[in-house]
Amino acid sequence: MRQCLFIGFSALLIACNSNPSDPQNEQQTRSSNGVQARWSIAIHGGAGHFGTENLSIEQQNAYRLSLTKALEAGGYVLDKGGNATDAVVAAIALMEDDSLFNAGRGAVYTASGAHELDASIMRGSDRNCGAVTGLQGFRHPIQVAMSVMEESQHVFFSGHGAGEFAHSTGAETAEPAWFHTQKAKARFERALERDTTQEKFGTVGCVALDSEGHLAAGTSTGGMTFKRHGRIGDSPIIGAGTWADDRTCAVSATGWGEFFIRSSVAHDIHARMLHAGTSLEEAASATIHQEMAALGGDGGVVAIDHWGNPVFSMNTLGMFRGALIAGGKPVTALFANEKIQP
Amino acid sequence: MRQCLFIGFSALLIACNSNPSDPQNEQQTRSSNGVQARWSIAIHGGAGHFGTENLSIEQQNAYRLSLTKALEAGGYVLDKGGNATDAVVAAIALMEDDSLFNAGRGAVYTASGAHELDASIMRGSDRNCGAVTGLQGFRHPIQVAMSVMEESQHVFFSGHGAGEFAHSTGAETAEPAWFHTQKAKARFERALERDTTQEKFGTVGCVALDSEGHLAAGTSTGGMTFKRHGRIGDSPIIGAGTWADDRTCAVSATGWGEFFIRSSVAHDIHARMLHAGTSLEEAASATIHQEMAALGGDGGVVAIDHWGNPVFSMNTLGMFRGALIAGGKPVTALFANEKIQP
Repeated sequence: MRQCLFIGFSALLIACNSNPSDPQNEQQTRSSNGVQARWSIAIHGGAGHFGTENLSIEQQNAYRLSLTKALEAGGYVLDKGGNATDAVVAAIALMEDDSLFNAGRGAVYTASGAHELDASIMRGSDRNCGAVTGLQGFRHPIQVAMSVMEESQHVFFSGHGAGEFAHSTGAETAEPAWFHTQKAKARFERALERDTTQEKFGTVGCVALDSEGHLAAGTSTGGMTFKRHGRIGDSPIIGAGTWADDRTCAVSATGWGEFFIRSSVAHDIHARMLHAGTSLEEAASATIHQEMAALGGDGGVVAIDHWGNPVFSMNTLGMFRGALIAGGKPVTALFANEKIQP
Repeated sequence: MRQCLFIGFSALLIACNSNPSDPQNEQQTRSSNGVQARWSIAIHGGAGHFGTENLSIEQQNAYRLSLTKALEAGGYVLDKGGNATDAVVAAIALMEDDSLFNAGRGAVYTASGAHELDASIMRGSDRNCGAVTGLQGFRHPIQVAMSVMEESQHVFFSGHGAGEFAHSTGAETAEPAWFHTQKAKARFERALERDTTQEKFGTVGCVALDSEGHLAAGTSTGGMTFKRHGRIGDSPIIGAGTWADDRTCAVSATGWGEFFIRSSVAHDIHARMLHAGTSLEEAASATIHQEMAALGGDGGVVAIDHWGNPVFSMNTLGMFRGALIAGGKPVTALFANEKIQP
């Protein structure tokens, strides 16, 4: 029954994807004309079943402002000739410091009342990557993931081992009070009353194309409110929550992590492009609305192809998101039926 | 330079894969004729750069005997009409108890002299899965992974959280002495002298097709000798070390985990079949010899398609492996140039 609901729902929402036959779709026009963006960046701040009735105008404006600032931070790096991984880290680090999002400051509480943070990053030039799960006491998990990629022979660390590695790199620490927000605490207390995991969304992510033609993707999250100690979702899993390959695309996912792992969402989008020659729009739509949704999951992705076209796909009512292309202005959207034309 | 070496090496070893044009290749004949095995199982006990000069006849016989027993244990389940996941668990649990392999008893030591075990399992009927990383003190990590799949709303647990979950399911515990072997201790001491990770191989894995037509895959490992606390390799990563989908294939990988994560090896093989209509033989060969080896990694996979054809692909000199098909006898191989025709 749940599956049927989602299949119907995805059919309804497929219009949220870029539509190749839509003349208003600037992304597709650029792609099919082979026009190459000098640089490009796109972000998300989580997907969920929220509509205009759930967010006041003030709240909507606050999200749009935060997304704009993150796009500008990443865009600044790219416009100066910086590389895609540095832009991804700059944009995500800003969102990790922003208590609006479920990553870094503002992260949700686990069942034991702690913050266990996950992050991952991948670059498309050599498919190197770095990830951490269950990281505690560090301000910017995305920077720790970046250090795993650049300074370690390994690609993925968990728990105390992730913390030991972070300390060895001199990563900036943060006290528990830094991560605390009243919103996350209230969610925790509601979950405690019901003894169940209620909140699944709010992850942040970024994909970027730099002026050298290289792609990168990164994702950072506090996970699910009231999650069990040691639970790993899709955000730190290379192939599920994050993927980048210069031949195809960069992808960052957000949603119900278990279903994104069971569908290898980020790698599946890449694989459709590499092995079947599918466009990014078609690949993202098929992976989200057919593969992932058919299992009963929900959420979305932000992705960018090697021409610099940003694509968003989701089967939720909303996803905080935005894009900025060299020479343009930051554009943002919150609800599924909003179009983005950077 | 390293990359060039591997590309040359993979060209040399591609003959280790099943060759569609080889009339002696029974697997391919069955597949192209559409002959469906009633059930089928294949296993590996790790890949590595070993040849006949590295293993005495006695050692070779010991490996062949252990592989045969694991195939018979899984085959017994399948022959009684049991499902593919139960067969995978039966075969892997036997190898976890066998000190010849780097999983369960016989697992390698971490840099701090402990055993941190990883395992994962996935079933092809509904793409559900379960995985644990950094599990300490439990005899059969593959059974804990199975419990994560069947009894938890989550799919992946790490460290103490994995242990807490295992305890809650009543999983069988084991003292540190159970995991100790002189061979693993000697490897640890060699690594300690050099202060570096030397040994990367010895993972065990199993793929199976049951009489209902369902596929499953599982993988279990102690990881790398002298690995840093919390390091996660590919074995517990759904999409990298393990994948199963009834539409295509089941895959279990073994090798240098970081490179298998960076190539999403198990999911990439599935994706080539699903999105490009490639045969399992071609898909496994391309993923191992082109995608993964091009990055500089080494190792291999055992896989089985929905007709029950076992396929092995590796770019190492050897992989402990075997297969058993309903009505046949167990066959095993150790070196890359041995053919398997179950």
